[in-house]
Amino acid sequence: MKTRDRILHVSLLLFNEEGEAQQTAVDISNALDISPGNLYYHFKGKDAIIHALFDRFEDEMRIILSGSRGRITSLEDSWVYLYIILEEIYDFRFFYRDLGLLLDRYPDLAKRFRTILSRMRTALVDVLDELTAGSVLRLDPRLREVLTDQFMTTLTFWLAEDHLNADSHDGPTLIHRTVLQVMCLLPPYMGDRGAETLTDLFEHYDTVVA
Amino acid sequence: MKTRDRILHVSLLLFNEEGEAQQTAVDISNALDISPGNLYYHFKGKDAIIHALFDRFEDEMRIILSGSRGRITSLEDSWVYLYIILEEIYDFRFFYRDLGLLLDRYPDLAKRFRTILSRMRTALVDVLDELTAGSVLRLDPRLREVLTDQFMTTLTFWLAEDHLNADSHDGPTLIHRTVLQVMCLLPPYMGDRGAETLTDLFEHYDTVVA
Repeated sequence: MKTRDRILHVSLLLFNEEGEAQQTAVDISNALDISPGNLYYHFKGKDAIIHALFDRFEDEMRIILSGSRGRITSLEDSWVYLYIILEEIYDFRFFYRDLGLLLDRYPDLAKRFRTILSRMRTALVDVLDELTAGSVLRLDPRLREVLTDQFMTTLTFWLAEDHLNADSHDGPTLIHRTVLQVMCLLPPYMGDRGAETLTDLFEHYDTVVA
Repeated sequence: MKTRDRILHVSLLLFNEEGEAQQTAVDISNALDISPGNLYYHFKGKDAIIHALFDRFEDEMRIILSGSRGRITSLEDSWVYLYIILEEIYDFRFFYRDLGLLLDRYPDLAKRFRTILSRMRTALVDVLDELTAGSVLRLDPRLREVLTDQFMTTLTFWLAEDHLNADSHDGPTLIHRTVLQVMCLLPPYMGDRGAETLTDLFEHYDTVVA
């Protein structure tokens, strides 16, 4: 692995495990066992590393969020799609843990972060529309935005909430749990198939976290 | 107003408006136009003020959250009850804006904060149970916890989310908007009356924020 990539990789690990605010450029070079000068040759300080990590997160999210259109035709597809989104967020979880604070400190990232949120909202509305068009859901049109708001709140704050509850979850379990929470909002809009679908969702959850 | 109460009152205003982390005991005494020595006579520094404010929040929340049992028999009651809870949170909104960070810095408050969350969860489950017992809702029992999780996420992170979105809302509008978001989760469990109730909820919102 090139030094530049190693720096990004180890920084991400450190930020995710210890929190970003606590880490300095010197901590990062120590963890990599390289000199601060060598680190500085690749990145002009910690801010440049944060920005490079954000670039990566932004690129990957753009690809994921533009990949749903026309492809989510069932609740199974929705589960997988939500899992992929949450897994991506989990990989860069230090951004989300103290989001308000991070965005106060990096106002240029706040703007780009809001663009990601807005893309995510569009992708989720698309999924609801496709499931409705495919008669999987019968959704009162007035609930489209309300339900999307609810999804967005959960998908933005699930990591902060987990931290708050101080339970310990491994990543995949926490991700599946969050997907289950979001998916359980849908069966009420499935008419007669709702109760059966709910059973399927709980059973699927038990299978994947077993 | 006694000096002690004035200190708490002005500190709360400052923390809510400017964020707690940025304020020092000297800032607070300047805002009150008293000497740091006089402030210190009443409170041994900023931490003591934070704790006194938390005591007050905790007391008021305990009263509100224990006041629902047997009294929430309609969606109108639920709206009012949620409004009262959210208004209380809004009064102490600096606790909620950077919650993770605050609780990292005050671990003793983290424990007490989790107790408040747990009481809130119990109160919300009671409301769902009462509405179900009164045949207002027909709720699949498996959704009781899931729906409560969803309520809890919104009621914990609505202020952080508003900050993130950088829209500006006056307090009452933001509170009513959040109540609407939560209440809209209920009509799907109301059978034939659901669509009409949804209309009522949106109309009620328009009336109260007009």
